Amino acid sequence: MSQDAEPVALGKVNLETQFALDYFNLEAPRVIETAADEVDNVFLVDHNEAQQSVADIDQVTVLGVVDHHRIANFKTSDPLYYRAEPVGSTATILSKIYKEQGIEIPKSIAGLMLSAVISDTLLLKSPTTTGEDYRAAEELAELAEVSLDDYGLELLKAGTNISSKTAKEILNDDAKSFTMGKDKVRIGQVNVVDIDGLLAAKKDELIQAMRDQIQEDDYSLVVLMITDIIENNSVAIVEGTAYRKFEMAFSKPIQMNTVELEGFVSRKKQLVPPLTEIFTRS
Amino acid sequence: MSQDAEPVALGKVNLETQFALDYFNLEAPRVIETAADEVDNVFLVDHNEAQQSVADIDQVTVLGVVDHHRIANFKTSDPLYYRAEPVGSTATILSKIYKEQGIEIPKSIAGLMLSAVISDTLLLKSPTTTGEDYRAAEELAELAEVSLDDYGLELLKAGTNISSKTAKEILNDDAKSFTMGKDKVRIGQVNVVDIDGLLAAKKDELIQAMRDQIQEDDYSLVVLMITDIIENNSVAIVEGTAYRKFEMAFSKPIQMNTVELEGFVSRKKQLVPPLTEIFTRS
Repeated sequence: MSQDAEPVALGKVNLETQFALDYFNLEAPRVIETAADEVDNVFLVDHNEAQQSVADIDQVTVLGVVDHHRIANFKTSDPLYYRAEPVGSTATILSKIYKEQGIEIPKSIAGLMLSAVISDTLLLKSPTTTGEDYRAAEELAELAEVSLDDYGLELLKAGTNISSKTAKEILNDDAKSFTMGKDKVRIGQVNVVDIDGLLAAKKDELIQAMRDQIQEDDYSLVVLMITDIIENNSVAIVEGTAYRKFEMAFSKPIQMNTVELEGFVSRKKQLVPPLTEIFTRS
Repeated sequence: MSQDAEPVALGKVNLETQFALDYFNLEAPRVIETAADEVDNVFLVDHNEAQQSVADIDQVTVLGVVDHHRIANFKTSDPLYYRAEPVGSTATILSKIYKEQGIEIPKSIAGLMLSAVISDTLLLKSPTTTGEDYRAAEELAELAEVSLDDYGLELLKAGTNISSKTAKEILNDDAKSFTMGKDKVRIGQVNVVDIDGLLAAKKDELIQAMRDQIQEDDYSLVVLMITDIIENNSVAIVEGTAYRKFEMAFSKPIQMNTVELEGFVSRKKQLVPPLTEIFTRS
């Protein structure tokens, strides 16, 4: 199956992605919010849930999906290509598909895919990391002609420079909405090298931005996971009427809207499953 | 990922499957109706919709899926392995996975996989058939040491011997339940070499069996697709309060509970998508 296609993005590039694009001398893809006004068919990469996709996803045909997340709020009326594997990064699956198809990965594309693996797995330290991610990262680093560790740390640090950002931007730069049972939950994540520094400078503004978001979009819970990429720990800021469900899911009290999550670095593997469990328990 | 597993079936083997098992000297797998009483984890093959699986599918973890159907009524709380391709048979995808893993397919397993491809694609004549199914069928026939065409016709004919079957058995031997919008729809399929002969002998009994099923399980529509495997045509028997939706979906009047479907052989590709479209139209 070969098909003309244009790669597009669902959100503006963040500092980490911009670093990778600049490093490998590539332009950012066009950002879209709807698709049906331009095309009949789409192919989803790195997501499947309707509320994480274009606003009019139900008006186009999903020809295929390559992803590494849970499957939810996703349905089709026709058979499709769907390739999901429980690995740390969708780029790891993409690198396998290149191999299976016998297509060589160009240097700059290998660099971007490597950046995705590093970003998703926090330089292979997240509990989501699998042997396949290690293999892919090493092969991609060779193709991209960079040192995995040196480039990886540079990339992650580029993403932690949030001094110029508003609270709203920090909250939304890497945020996803989930439907859990009857509730809407939003979970953002931001990487830092100094959790306490961010809290001291922005905690009140962040909580206000979370309250605004709850008012606007009717979330039961908004969470911001602040992750220390050197220590591999997180602190979460939590707001919303369903905050007790968060406490139940992790057996931890929330104090002044914050809670320490020792050893937590993965939203997908460490935050989402226990929350889904609590919200869908009858 | 390697894991101990037992292959099990969700229904009793039909005549076609029994022919393939006998031909390659294999036993039928054990039939199960529930899973949570025995295991924590399952891997779904050739289906994903909850109502087509074990009754307690929401009480076990779905580790993975290999399938070639639409995705609907399927959700997980954790990432998983999911491999779907829009090909004619799940066995075609399985044969690719064997290759990718570098595992040789034993003769008798190749024979069963070949039988699945032949059954799903009506010997490669269904509109669902792709180039990949052709390739898989030819390779599997060689491994199974049979002639694709001769064995294929024998297999399909074995499935058409319904003289000893009750109407209820004919209706349910290869039937699937679908949730379409708010309605429950059941679609059975039976292969024959003489559609008129079956209608003359069993039509009244079949309609009565369909009415019984509607009473028991609250279907809005029950359809039996009777497919002529030589001519590649079908006639459908239709019963249920939503019969007008069937007429709208295919722009054909139902007369005395039956409707001719020229060129129709695929439930998945030719019946399900237009029906889904009509039932989910707001």
